[in-house]
Amino acid sequence: MAVEPEVVLLDFWVSPFGQRCRIALEEKDVPYEYREQDVLNCKGELLSSAPTRAQDDPRPAPRRQGHLTYVDEAWPDAAPLLPRDDPYARAEARFWADYIDKKIYGCQTRLWKLKGEAQEQAKKDLTEVLKTLESELGDKPYFAGDTFGFVDIALVPFTSWFLAYEKLGGFSIEEHCPKIVAWAKLCREGESVAKALTDPDKVEFVQFLQTKFGPM
Amino acid sequence: MAVEPEVVLLDFWVSPFGQRCRIALEEKDVPYEYREQDVLNCKGELLSSAPTRAQDDPRPAPRRQGHLTYVDEAWPDAAPLLPRDDPYARAEARFWADYIDKKIYGCQTRLWKLKGEAQEQAKKDLTEVLKTLESELGDKPYFAGDTFGFVDIALVPFTSWFLAYEKLGGFSIEEHCPKIVAWAKLCREGESVAKALTDPDKVEFVQFLQTKFGPM
Repeated sequence: MAVEPEVVLLDFWVSPFGQRCRIALEEKDVPYEYREQDVLNCKGELLSSAPTRAQDDPRPAPRRQGHLTYVDEAWPDAAPLLPRDDPYARAEARFWADYIDKKIYGCQTRLWKLKGEAQEQAKKDLTEVLKTLESELGDKPYFAGDTFGFVDIALVPFTSWFLAYEKLGGFSIEEHCPKIVAWAKLCREGESVAKALTDPDKVEFVQFLQTKFGPM
Repeated sequence: MAVEPEVVLLDFWVSPFGQRCRIALEEKDVPYEYREQDVLNCKGELLSSAPTRAQDDPRPAPRRQGHLTYVDEAWPDAAPLLPRDDPYARAEARFWADYIDKKIYGCQTRLWKLKGEAQEQAKKDLTEVLKTLESELGDKPYFAGDTFGFVDIALVPFTSWFLAYEKLGGFSIEEHCPKIVAWAKLCREGESVAKALTDPDKVEFVQFLQTKFGPM
């Protein structure tokens, strides 16, 4: 049996991107050491290990879905996340993961940073994005069909923020996107997600973000 | 011998992302039909074939480096663009391509859209980004070492815009980043780049963009 490499995950408990890595590593049964990073105060190994940290910009350039692809390629035998032999299906999955990164993350930030009409717009945009994803999901149990995979892992960590969005915006995501909420529940029944996903009740954190950085 | 699939490239002559596809297809010797798209007037097959075109947002969600990965995976045997058996090197290459997408494209847009102090800042930021890339290139001929590859293809189309940046900003990129300019010249000696890259003299187009959309 091959010796497992030592994996250290530099993470931040509520990060959707960190949660993705945890789920992917659990899916592939790769043991790892979790090290919490003090991201909000710009401290920790994560920041000092980032290859493009400009002096005036302490944020590491985001790697987002890059982490997930790396995990899939470094441990290719167990639980493939991207479809193995279909370049087009792989490109489609990466497209949707990219869509999630660009659209949901942006709406989410506007939702807690802004107020009034601008916050209403962020709510509307988020709902539209989730509806587009709902339409892509269709009647399949998971985005790729019958198997939990790349796009599910890319999206599911954001669902742990749903409760916070709803409290912030005074709206119900389930009312607008019942299929996405049902899909999220199904994902949470899986062992990897159940183990790695942040408890939605703990994402009161958003209020802390508001206090620290906004609302604007 | 396998029959080549029919490839149709929906492109826009000056697009850095389209130029990437052309270079990658040339590298792999894949024949393709080029179809110019009327992107500026939001017409053409490219827009109607985009899977996430919202009614109020006629822009297709960008796929950027996704195209390049697809070409590499769909024609894996000829001229691999990403290193084949090194997941970490692959992740690093994708990271730099992502960095190029996020940073250069943003600076470029600000450079032609803005004026005065904001334009000066865009010039400064672009120079910093190119210096970071120059430092990553180091003394190697290409980003991955001795072979022209993924990161080279991701970056080289932007160099066809350099002349336009310099005219717009009244500065010399070579003065600040001589190694990047030397690397670009070396890339242009390769057959695929020579054939597919837009002539820098034709990127007067930026002035047209300014007339149509800005400066702001």
